[in-house]
Amino acid sequence: MLTLDKIYHASYVLKDVIRRTDLIHAPQISSTATVYLKPENLQLTGSFKVRGSYYKISQLSDDEKAKGVIACSAGNHAQGVALAATKNGIKSTICLPDCAPISKVEATKKYGAEICLVEGVYDDAYQKALQLRDENGYTFIHPFDDEDVIAGQGTIGLELLDQLKNIDVVIVPIGGGGLISGVAFAIKSLNPNVKVYGVQSSGAPSMFNSIKNKKIERLPGVSTIADGIAVKEPGQNTFNLCSKYVDKIVTVTDDEVSSAILSMIEHQKLIAEGAGAVAVAAAMFNKVPIEGKNVVCLVSGGNIDVTILDRVIKRGLLTAGRSCALTIELIDKPGQLLLISKIIAENGGNVISVHHERANASMDINGCFLRVNMETRNFEQIEQIKSALIKAGLKLENNKF
Amino acid sequence: MLTLDKIYHASYVLKDVIRRTDLIHAPQISSTATVYLKPENLQLTGSFKVRGSYYKISQLSDDEKAKGVIACSAGNHAQGVALAATKNGIKSTICLPDCAPISKVEATKKYGAEICLVEGVYDDAYQKALQLRDENGYTFIHPFDDEDVIAGQGTIGLELLDQLKNIDVVIVPIGGGGLISGVAFAIKSLNPNVKVYGVQSSGAPSMFNSIKNKKIERLPGVSTIADGIAVKEPGQNTFNLCSKYVDKIVTVTDDEVSSAILSMIEHQKLIAEGAGAVAVAAAMFNKVPIEGKNVVCLVSGGNIDVTILDRVIKRGLLTAGRSCALTIELIDKPGQLLLISKIIAENGGNVISVHHERANASMDINGCFLRVNMETRNFEQIEQIKSALIKAGLKLENNKF
Repeated sequence: MLTLDKIYHASYVLKDVIRRTDLIHAPQISSTATVYLKPENLQLTGSFKVRGSYYKISQLSDDEKAKGVIACSAGNHAQGVALAATKNGIKSTICLPDCAPISKVEATKKYGAEICLVEGVYDDAYQKALQLRDENGYTFIHPFDDEDVIAGQGTIGLELLDQLKNIDVVIVPIGGGGLISGVAFAIKSLNPNVKVYGVQSSGAPSMFNSIKNKKIERLPGVSTIADGIAVKEPGQNTFNLCSKYVDKIVTVTDDEVSSAILSMIEHQKLIAEGAGAVAVAAAMFNKVPIEGKNVVCLVSGGNIDVTILDRVIKRGLLTAGRSCALTIELIDKPGQLLLISKIIAENGGNVISVHHERANASMDINGCFLRVNMETRNFEQIEQIKSALIKAGLKLENNKF
Repeated sequence: MLTLDKIYHASYVLKDVIRRTDLIHAPQISSTATVYLKPENLQLTGSFKVRGSYYKISQLSDDEKAKGVIACSAGNHAQGVALAATKNGIKSTICLPDCAPISKVEATKKYGAEICLVEGVYDDAYQKALQLRDENGYTFIHPFDDEDVIAGQGTIGLELLDQLKNIDVVIVPIGGGGLISGVAFAIKSLNPNVKVYGVQSSGAPSMFNSIKNKKIERLPGVSTIADGIAVKEPGQNTFNLCSKYVDKIVTVTDDEVSSAILSMIEHQKLIAEGAGAVAVAAAMFNKVPIEGKNVVCLVSGGNIDVTILDRVIKRGLLTAGRSCALTIELIDKPGQLLLISKIIAENGGNVISVHHERANASMDINGCFLRVNMETRNFEQIEQIKSALIKAGLKLENNKF
């Protein structure tokens, strides 16, 4: 059974191993609450996961340690287990599906793990990991449904109580539920007045559904930018602990998560991954009651693929009026591009690409479409450019942005 | 005259005002040295500037305070002065050129400053600031060439000596030279064995040239992604202090700075602006001797425009083989796009845009170009896709990437 003792013990064991991440005041997240971030994206390996894996591995018997450990993950758990095993001086094997991003494979290898690439998807890699465990006597390190792992993550709860006097609310991401189980248990055991809210992606609401329906439910599929918490089914331990200690679970959309990531980049200079940003998204979009409260949003990790980051920023620029795509219908005669370029330049827009298209059945045979992508300052400027184009006799197609 | 006393005093004054930023171990920056970051991008206002402005303002007479302060800046200095004045309970006016990014204007306003937008460029805003100073009796807060400002920035030097035992090397960005003057003075006064290196952008090497030629030199123009250190001419105080206390000044290119920004995003989960990344770039690209040393790279700020960040990431993805643009010459007949799509998909590439172009004078009358942009895993995969396309009889144009 999970006890406060165990979490204190984990805290002692982790003392000189992990970073005690700073609390960072983040006034831009909410105008009605005092919001702080707990930046576990700055933790070793870029996520909180190393806390649980390290504590779990440190508690193995000498015999178990001699045989080594195995895990299955393409993400933060893999890196956490790899580093934790290396720091404990034991061997680790990580099974990953062969479609895993090369950057994650390389990072895991760098932390000292042996990599076993398995053809197929996550479930195939998982089966392979169990097979290797049985063949070699490895200990399987579960990513969340394990008491020692949960105790390790719970050390964050102790740090929060220590770092922020008058703490009222803690908002925590939920995938399988290991992190929030440990944090909620630690906090509620010491101060039941602190509210603990959980956040899932609306594309992967497994714990949300399970708690609502009071039994563990498995999702047929998951789809979210927050891949780190895209878990189909909660664990038995984590389901029980969440049922008992978590005040409320809410969900956020991918668009809300993207806004949260962009806000942290602009205002806190911190990179969060999708899963790491859901608590901030919940605070930003008023999913939980925080008015007038002292709130901590747990930023669980920062291992976002740069390709995804690129897309998040692009969407953020569009939704903030910082870039804009216009489609202009025009008569195909010389000087039209000159006219348009002139109008855009005069109004301070910065053209980054232009694309001509002719021969659309719905238009004049001499007509053509011009698609212009440009950098802009804000929506006001976009409207100004649009008006000037219309005033010059040009016809704009409807664009979402 | 600058004294160690003054820097200790600044440290005392700033104690409860600014953040004492953590040192963060950054093993990915160099394989031969032990590198730490001093993340002043996590400082209030997103840069170190608030240290100097706050200390300067705190030392004004009651009469000066009653009249208020004025500064001219479109960047970090503006936000530093605005917050410092507000925290001291006095009025601040910031002159900015009207072409300044709206985000910076908004941020400065939010910290409590009165904004004066001036038609023209920086020099026009500067003239306006001097005019307003004379008319209203405001105190002008210089961005770097002021003893109190330098003393405030120097507090970082005291923190570094305290935070890292056996510190061997400190690498510091240079714009006007206020930051490095304070840091070098503090460090060399206490421990002359520590090497202090300065870094400028190769597109704005004003201090680099001035020190080399042993007299203050003005650049005709500056051009760099590191806009925060794009300064045409160093100050008299900072020139003297750098001449005496800085061991060496080097320069880095915009491409090196972009790589440094991307590396900090991927490995440290931190957003640095161009100016903030030059010290890391100098360490990454072996511009200064650090082998076997304990090194601190000062990350001076994180206020990067998201549009610039977008471009940096794009370039980073290209140079890392994470995205790729191919131009394919093909005979214009049905099924060609299908063939190409099939080959790319089979090799795991993810197409994000396709662009057809016909009628190029240098080609077969039935020929056409296809420009394909795709997300890739690495250069190996790109080569694999290229080979498969060539094997299928397609002709690739030469692409830089």
